[in-house]
Amino acid sequence: MRKIHVIGIGAGDPDQLTLQAVKALRSTDVFFVLGKGEAKSDLVQLRRDILDAHLSDGAYRLVEARDPDRDRAADGAAYSPAVGDWRSARADIYQRLIAEELGEDESGAFLVWGDPALYDSTLGILEEILDRGAVAFTYDVVPGISSVSALVARHRTGLNRVAGPVQITTGRRLAEAFPEGVDDVVVMLDAHQAFRRYADEDIDIYWGAYIGTPDEILASGPIAEAAPRIERLRAEARERKGWIMDTYLLRRRPRG
Amino acid sequence: MRKIHVIGIGAGDPDQLTLQAVKALRSTDVFFVLGKGEAKSDLVQLRRDILDAHLSDGAYRLVEARDPDRDRAADGAAYSPAVGDWRSARADIYQRLIAEELGEDESGAFLVWGDPALYDSTLGILEEILDRGAVAFTYDVVPGISSVSALVARHRTGLNRVAGPVQITTGRRLAEAFPEGVDDVVVMLDAHQAFRRYADEDIDIYWGAYIGTPDEILASGPIAEAAPRIERLRAEARERKGWIMDTYLLRRRPRG
Ligand SMILES: C[S@@+](CC[C@H](N)C(=O)[O-])C[C@H]1O[C@@H](n2cnc3c(N)ncnc32)[C@H](O)[C@@H]1O
Ligand SMILES: C[S@@+](CC[C@H](N)C(=O)[O-])C[C@H]1O[C@@H](n2cnc3c(N)ncnc32)[C@H](O)[C@@H]1O
Repeated sequence: MRKIHVIGIGAGDPDQLTLQAVKALRSTDVFFVLGKGEAKSDLVQLRRDILDAHLSDGAYRLVEARDPDRDRAADGAAYSPAVGDWRSARADIYQRLIAEELGEDESGAFLVWGDPALYDSTLGILEEILDRGAVAFTYDVVPGISSVSALVARHRTGLNRVAGPVQITTGRRLAEAFPEGVDDVVVMLDAHQAFRRYADEDIDIYWGAYIGTPDEILASGPIAEAAPRIERLRAEARERKGWIMDTYLLRRRPRG
Repeated sequence: MRKIHVIGIGAGDPDQLTLQAVKALRSTDVFFVLGKGEAKSDLVQLRRDILDAHLSDGAYRLVEARDPDRDRAADGAAYSPAVGDWRSARADIYQRLIAEELGEDESGAFLVWGDPALYDSTLGILEEILDRGAVAFTYDVVPGISSVSALVARHRTGLNRVAGPVQITTGRRLAEAFPEGVDDVVVMLDAHQAFRRYADEDIDIYWGAYIGTPDEILASGPIAEAAPRIERLRAEARERKGWIMDTYLLRRRPRG
């Protein structure tokens, strides 16, 4: 039976790989890497660097495929209605990779950015392929350090406050409203700096871009003061690199 | 200047240590281990096993201290009003450990269960000690795989659904109400199986105890069917081992 590892590789720092992930890499015959085109080729490169660091030269097979093009409007800003089609298109590609590139007794791996549990479609796609019944395989999941964990570690703060809840959400949702019932909110997939809407509230922001990579930028402070600073840092970085990935924690100050 | 590493060691599986954590262990002179008494000595043992696996014998110093006794009522069930006192008592102990056991140019480490960002007091305590101004040090944080990430990896599911939010909260809060505005909720620190209250709702539960350890137990399913099964498994395990740590994801099924 074919076997697939879905391996969380951390969100930028190759040292944030777990020992379990290293073992899974070493028990893999074929690695599947999906490129997103020019823009994010740094991210594909990081995957290659990780393989080179932990596997002996030439001891592995790498199969690259081109990610299906996604509705441009959806890019970065969470998901548009096009996401269903995109997911199916991706499932077609994954299915072909598994059926054609993996021998009956071989194991393949998808290297997933951060933690496969957060805003990643790999698990859903594998389930979709299994549902189709066209190719059989088993799979397991190796958790990874998410950009969320990496963010708060760099800021040396927690996700929640004592006994309090924390919510993880998208920029698109934050643009609609501040989540109910929580004072600590982590925001991902925000292409439009939704935090600006809350700049006159009693909130502290802990922001990070390219966390864990040599390009890492961190900024934090009361949102009124920090928001314009972050906007500037973000625009400069985006200009310089051509793309950005950033995440932030909003922490409402105790009322009273 | 004294230097402290706060190192997330994962939530039970020693292979879920990151390479960064291993490097931090190797650059540490003195390890501080706080025992919680008999009950959870397995957890202290796991820390020792990790040190033995990654450091050459006798190359490290281990200082053990007894955790201050915590209001028994608060045990397991999140935090009671006694938590402030307990935190200060803990800060006293940590401060003494840092001041007395760590040379001026040495580095010490606290090995934190899971990810230091989730329901852990170490960072707050270090800040309290720095605020007191009695002993100076710098510190950094090494993120770890949380029990939350480990839980969903074992169940091979995500934390959020496509573009949806996820909340992480405590059993105590879940017992009050189901969180507003989210259909995916992770519950920690639940000594009273608050999920039972929702057994007649359209919810799936993904539950795990002692995740990542040889005692790991997993169960999942529609909550009406799974809740009694989990109650039984949990009671048996608790009886057998004398203590339990468990976490679960509640996932509301799409309405309509
Ligand atoms: C499609 S999601 C994938 C998240 C990933 N599975 C994780 O666990 O971090 C991509 C989003 O993650 C965040 N992100 C990922 N890596 C990041 C990094 N190194 N620095 C800052 N944000 C990052 C950004 O919010 C980005 O929009
Ligand atoms: C004080 S909190 C610490 C959480 C930890 N910092 C983390 O990242 O997982 C303790 C709670 O974490 C959860 N937990 C920790 N380790 C676990 C494990 N191996 N299996 C199941 N739950 C666990 C339980 O809900 C427990 O009540």
